[in-house]
Amino acid sequence: MKFELSKEYIEHIQSLIEEQSVAKLTEELTEIHAADIAEIYEAIELEQAHFLHNIIEDEKGADILMELEDDLRDQLLDNLSPKEIAEEVLENLESDDAADIVSELPQEVKEEVLSHIEDVEHASDIADLLNYPEDTAGGLMAKELIKVNKNWTVMRCVREMRKQAENVSFVYTIYVVDNNDILLGTLSLKKLLLTDAKTIISEIYKEDIIMVNANEDNEEVGNIMNKYDLIVLPVVNDLGQLIGRITVDDVMEVIKEEAEKDYQMASGISEDVESSDSVWTLTRARLPWLLIGMIGGLLGAKVIGIFDIEKNYQMAFFIPLIAAMGGNVGVQSAAIVVQGLAGGSIEFNGTFKRLIKELGVALVNGIICSSIIYIAAFLLGYEVWLSATVSIALLAVIIFAALFGTFVPLTLDKYKIDPALATGPFITTVNDVLGLFIYFLIGQMILS
Amino acid sequence: MKFELSKEYIEHIQSLIEEQSVAKLTEELTEIHAADIAEIYEAIELEQAHFLHNIIEDEKGADILMELEDDLRDQLLDNLSPKEIAEEVLENLESDDAADIVSELPQEVKEEVLSHIEDVEHASDIADLLNYPEDTAGGLMAKELIKVNKNWTVMRCVREMRKQAENVSFVYTIYVVDNNDILLGTLSLKKLLLTDAKTIISEIYKEDIIMVNANEDNEEVGNIMNKYDLIVLPVVNDLGQLIGRITVDDVMEVIKEEAEKDYQMASGISEDVESSDSVWTLTRARLPWLLIGMIGGLLGAKVIGIFDIEKNYQMAFFIPLIAAMGGNVGVQSAAIVVQGLAGGSIEFNGTFKRLIKELGVALVNGIICSSIIYIAAFLLGYEVWLSATVSIALLAVIIFAALFGTFVPLTLDKYKIDPALATGPFITTVNDVLGLFIYFLIGQMILS
Repeated sequence: MKFELSKEYIEHIQSLIEEQSVAKLTEELTEIHAADIAEIYEAIELEQAHFLHNIIEDEKGADILMELEDDLRDQLLDNLSPKEIAEEVLENLESDDAADIVSELPQEVKEEVLSHIEDVEHASDIADLLNYPEDTAGGLMAKELIKVNKNWTVMRCVREMRKQAENVSFVYTIYVVDNNDILLGTLSLKKLLLTDAKTIISEIYKEDIIMVNANEDNEEVGNIMNKYDLIVLPVVNDLGQLIGRITVDDVMEVIKEEAEKDYQMASGISEDVESSDSVWTLTRARLPWLLIGMIGGLLGAKVIGIFDIEKNYQMAFFIPLIAAMGGNVGVQSAAIVVQGLAGGSIEFNGTFKRLIKELGVALVNGIICSSIIYIAAFLLGYEVWLSATVSIALLAVIIFAALFGTFVPLTLDKYKIDPALATGPFITTVNDVLGLFIYFLIGQMILS
Repeated sequence: MKFELSKEYIEHIQSLIEEQSVAKLTEELTEIHAADIAEIYEAIELEQAHFLHNIIEDEKGADILMELEDDLRDQLLDNLSPKEIAEEVLENLESDDAADIVSELPQEVKEEVLSHIEDVEHASDIADLLNYPEDTAGGLMAKELIKVNKNWTVMRCVREMRKQAENVSFVYTIYVVDNNDILLGTLSLKKLLLTDAKTIISEIYKEDIIMVNANEDNEEVGNIMNKYDLIVLPVVNDLGQLIGRITVDDVMEVIKEEAEKDYQMASGISEDVESSDSVWTLTRARLPWLLIGMIGGLLGAKVIGIFDIEKNYQMAFFIPLIAAMGGNVGVQSAAIVVQGLAGGSIEFNGTFKRLIKELGVALVNGIICSSIIYIAAFLLGYEVWLSATVSIALLAVIIFAALFGTFVPLTLDKYKIDPALATGPFITTVNDVLGLFIYFLIGQMILS
């Protein structure tokens, strides 16, 4: 029922490959879903994946390619001639997936590959999709869909659907258009099943329809499908003509990547990297944030240098505590704002209301923490002036960091910059430095 | 085409409510999607939402309730009698949504509400769904589906589907079962459209089907639907009988919440909170991490206290830098592991291989950072022994933090603890303290 990729199973497949047991492999692999075979490819050597790919039938092979990581897919495609790519891969894929494959090919090969596709309509669909930027609705959509004219009867509708269905692997929705291909609405399968064969479509279709323009940003497409719980979303051009449809599985990736991007930013990683990427790629994604942290550290050193730490060396004991707490509170506050902005729940609250609330949270947290630290520092035997300094400074730092952590992402968002930037090392670093400044300022006031 | 909720529009609706212009409101609201009206409810006063809800027809009203945040939905439901909840709300919802509503009601009201549902089958479907824990496949599934017997002809199949379709709002897939209701496969609409009316279903259905047991964990359901690009997933009981289906929109929430949970953990927030929650809830979600940070800060104070900071007070200057860098590198390393584990790409790599790679990244980052800091500290006029100490300590801290940040989430995962815990303040705090220890140790070695 559920496929579990075990080490043993991989070894079993590998030994079958070594024995060149084509018959056995073919038998086993027909039972396994393309997405699972893709995982097998990823787990074995490239040579072995090549061997497997050659014995798998084209249609399934094409599906497997779509499930692979880009690197491995490119390596497997490198072995195929333009004609083979067209006939074995592209002809077995829906237009959106086929266009994704073609877009990754070198420019000079693209045209040749397309010319080898037998189904001219399919080839022109793919060529058309290549025109849309990857991060737009047009870049996500597929051309395959079922559309019917509002003037047809139910009977003609079913007959035409039969013809169209030959090119569509899965029927999601039946779209109703007028004579100019302008999208008017949808026809539910239910209505079609329950209505008399002579009824005209225009009498039974649903006009209320959510659609997007091909130029719409792909994140917005994700938001729309998520908000309205859509399985499939029709795409129109500037004239309102139906030109494609986006299914939710393609958008799920966009939504996931969006959430992961926030997470990566909060963790101080600047590019979309995976653990399987090269050492160099991983380094490049992480170094920028470390450099920001270093600049913060050098500024921190300067701040400490301003004050007479030589005379009041005990102040040094609590530098880590003050710095860490400022950073932690700032990131918490920023993360709550970032999620609120993403979910749309903050929109009507306004900056001022939000800051007042955050001030409340910071006061409660700050008073609890500074009381605890005063008692703890006293019990651990630190001098009273130091305990008092740390305690008062901590309260001040928590309040400042909370307000700053709230204010920065709201401001970034106002200027259309991704507010998640604020949860990364940037805000931690600024809070570190300013926290230290507050700490030493209060220390000096108490001591003088 | 796309609804934009502006402040002006809210004010416009509010003034119509004050004027009690029922006719105008009805006219405007029929044009607006339930999900958008839910946003309007959230933006206006409770009294006003009550007023609107009363003039909206039941079917749309029920959809709106499903789109609301839990608090507001409960407040609106409080105004309805058990009979009204049954007739106005539950009868207009699919079984899964209806069960969600009923499960939130007080125990003593549940039975009364169910008894008021006219459609007995619908009531028993809801009662049945209440038995499944919320975080399982059973808790996500709905009962409405189209199923046909493998022994039927295409003609009988269409006839029976017509009957069943009356209770199903949207036909996703046609399921094929045997005489004992055991799920055998699916029948595509395409096949149904293209096949002769006398053909027996068993000759044309697709056996290859992915299904889940009702007890399956909801995160796993999300993974399966995502991996196999499924729009709808059938649910079976222990006997293999078809008992329900899960649609992707319900799972999208699970996937999103999962990603958000990681983000919240990385940001030091322990509960699922939103910016609209009360000050007290927000405080409670944040305080635990702050207390961990405080304990780390106190330990840091102790570590500094061990060394003779009075004599070498200049060491204090770079405490923030060392602490911050340890924390940053640790969180980066942990985040990459967490995402790798979630995406399944680490599974076959093994801990050792992963640590070796991380060591490579840490060496490159560490050598770059420590070279820069040596030169920067020197140029800024710090003494040579201090520049050397900071530089060497930084390299050591970066390497240690990277390995520690990789090791901890891998170990947590091995013991089935959520590895995302490792990206939170916990790892930062430990790295802070150990980083300081390394720093002072190296400082003492160089000075002595």
